[in-house]
Amino acid sequence: MKTGEMQSNMKTIVGGVTAAKGFTAGGVHCGIRKSRKKRDLGLIYSAVPAQAAAVYTTNLVKGAPLLVTKEHLSNGKAQACIINSGNANTCNANGVEIAEQTSALLASALGIEKEDVVVASTGVIGQPMSIEPFEKGIPALVKDLSSDGSARAAEAIMTTDTVKKEIAVSFELGGQTVTIGGIAKGSGMIHPNMATMLVFLTTDCAISAGMLQKALSTDVQSSFNMVSVDGDTSTNDMVTILANGLAGNPVIESEGEDFSLFMKALNTVTVSLCKALAADGEGATKFLECSVSGAKTPQDAKKAAKAVICSSLVKAAMFGSDANWGRVLCAIGYSGADVNVQKVDVSFLSPKGSVLVCKDGASVDFSEKKAKEVLSEKEITIAVTLHDGESSSVAWGSDLTYDYVRINGDYRT
Amino acid sequence: MKTGEMQSNMKTIVGGVTAAKGFTAGGVHCGIRKSRKKRDLGLIYSAVPAQAAAVYTTNLVKGAPLLVTKEHLSNGKAQACIINSGNANTCNANGVEIAEQTSALLASALGIEKEDVVVASTGVIGQPMSIEPFEKGIPALVKDLSSDGSARAAEAIMTTDTVKKEIAVSFELGGQTVTIGGIAKGSGMIHPNMATMLVFLTTDCAISAGMLQKALSTDVQSSFNMVSVDGDTSTNDMVTILANGLAGNPVIESEGEDFSLFMKALNTVTVSLCKALAADGEGATKFLECSVSGAKTPQDAKKAAKAVICSSLVKAAMFGSDANWGRVLCAIGYSGADVNVQKVDVSFLSPKGSVLVCKDGASVDFSEKKAKEVLSEKEITIAVTLHDGESSSVAWGSDLTYDYVRINGDYRT
Repeated sequence: MKTGEMQSNMKTIVGGVTAAKGFTAGGVHCGIRKSRKKRDLGLIYSAVPAQAAAVYTTNLVKGAPLLVTKEHLSNGKAQACIINSGNANTCNANGVEIAEQTSALLASALGIEKEDVVVASTGVIGQPMSIEPFEKGIPALVKDLSSDGSARAAEAIMTTDTVKKEIAVSFELGGQTVTIGGIAKGSGMIHPNMATMLVFLTTDCAISAGMLQKALSTDVQSSFNMVSVDGDTSTNDMVTILANGLAGNPVIESEGEDFSLFMKALNTVTVSLCKALAADGEGATKFLECSVSGAKTPQDAKKAAKAVICSSLVKAAMFGSDANWGRVLCAIGYSGADVNVQKVDVSFLSPKGSVLVCKDGASVDFSEKKAKEVLSEKEITIAVTLHDGESSSVAWGSDLTYDYVRINGDYRT
Repeated sequence: MKTGEMQSNMKTIVGGVTAAKGFTAGGVHCGIRKSRKKRDLGLIYSAVPAQAAAVYTTNLVKGAPLLVTKEHLSNGKAQACIINSGNANTCNANGVEIAEQTSALLASALGIEKEDVVVASTGVIGQPMSIEPFEKGIPALVKDLSSDGSARAAEAIMTTDTVKKEIAVSFELGGQTVTIGGIAKGSGMIHPNMATMLVFLTTDCAISAGMLQKALSTDVQSSFNMVSVDGDTSTNDMVTILANGLAGNPVIESEGEDFSLFMKALNTVTVSLCKALAADGEGATKFLECSVSGAKTPQDAKKAAKAVICSSLVKAAMFGSDANWGRVLCAIGYSGADVNVQKVDVSFLSPKGSVLVCKDGASVDFSEKKAKEVLSEKEITIAVTLHDGESSSVAWGSDLTYDYVRINGDYRT
């Protein structure tokens, strides 16, 4: 894809999932969570039926809402997404029933088909779940729908997240302004594999369901699949995108410049959400980015970048601002990437500068004081050059801290 | 292997790597570590040349000592093992040279061939290394050799380990008493993949080099390859076994009852060391065992057991004595094992009793109070039944604690 020549005038705007034309959203507290203050039920609604696409977790244990959503999206259409936090509705005897009832209740309240509802849940696995909070909450939720409701929906889907994650961009396509927005939740149990944490994307772009799925499936390979907080792939991961066509651009029905522009804008949205997810990793004090270049193939670059980001030892060293680059090399060595370890260079970068710590796979003289200074910052890049080819990749994660252990030592209570 | 019929009279004895006939060992402080009190150079010596076998890390980044040892063991023979802690001699420009010089110095001091020396290093990766501490230390080390020196060698190879790891067993073979002993080091960067951490095994069993390698390569699949502390596969992992034949049993040159007896005794030694390694995992407060039964194939059982033991979320829950069984199911789901998640049962066991927390992949009523009591113990078994076949497997690990983060946040300084 050559994007240099395109004139897209892409810019970041406010509004999250309600930035695109025709979308409203909302979020209320319905009682799934005991705390009164935290919203636990969110809704995204398109005024007209939308093309829809999704990718799901590869975990064999799948949340019941995913099974129901997959069925509902089989015709490539949807009009609303309802999401609860506080209970994952996974490994429950009545999970599918609850998800189906939720869809039916919402469809009836909105006057749409229940097959046009995307349903998702996040929270503790294996806890009993009842339909009552949904019965009680859905009328209020539908009433709460508004064009400034993205933040409330983003809040309703949070679990151990400490900040809301939303973004939107607009760009020109076929003479029309097209917008893509998204919200995400995710802080722990983050190690997507061919799918990802909970992410809801909306766009007013006119695009066929097939091309929408193609765009999403391609994008996650270099966005959400490159984030890891703790190496655990969730049972409830899902990314959904709704495209209602209200921007009025010529419908994208095949590859070409319009599709490339759409992909580029989509990637801006997804990478922004990836970084927000990693930075808000459970207990995280630092955001880590590992950029690998000079790899033989894109697959090798990805394997190396992801192994570094996933290494508990690298993550703990970054927490301690310790330039222990041997652990970076060690992770590359077991990553499964085809690399010549005698040619690897490693640098640490942050707003405080950069320091080369390893050249040709061996130690170089560097100032420990300078390295400590660079690594004491809150955003750190581990830059790896393999000198073995032309491919590159980037992965995102966070440091391993006392608070990660505290949060996960007693999540349920 | 049907071991029920065998009469081996196997018993655990003292003496570690010097328990078998003809072996002596020792350990001194030579100055690689700055602390004066900690021994940092260990030696194991056989009075006669021994058959030797080894398995090595699969990490592409390999410590220089491993490359030299592999070369030395190409003829299946060795007579001494020299091991330093404090510096991994990995990613150094002069690593191979140092390892070769060390072998030559030791060979000359002992009056043996330098090709009969196994050399190993453990510690920080990528630190400059000099031959001087070895020149200074080897004469004292050779003088320190004695039949009660196993504990000193075990101490010399420790890094972040908090306790020495040694064991020996004796058993009857062809009318003779045969002994197998071992020492191990390892606490962090433990996630062996087809090889393992540093382990030295000695036996006076008469066995061919080929059968010795076969026994070791088979054994590690169900012993050291099933231990994980932090998911990081070390660059310096190695298990070596020396068999000097002094027990006088009929030489084992093929499979059969004698080989099975030897394998059984070997497995007793290696599993004991595995458990010691896991229990001493960096920062660990609890020893975890995951036993999986009813799997379709041994490979499925292994994948499931290892995924549970490796999950940061399961490890943190165990630290917090939290019966969060959903994380166990989640790990099985992403393990890659071929399982029917609707048939999975999970129980937690400890000296305080057992509690069934999941039946047929869904929640069951259980007493949270009883579960807390069971999980507050220091040794916990996570018992998983897949009801899908006849295969089983066991993996070992430790909980994830504040101290793991503290230890690894600043390991080098």
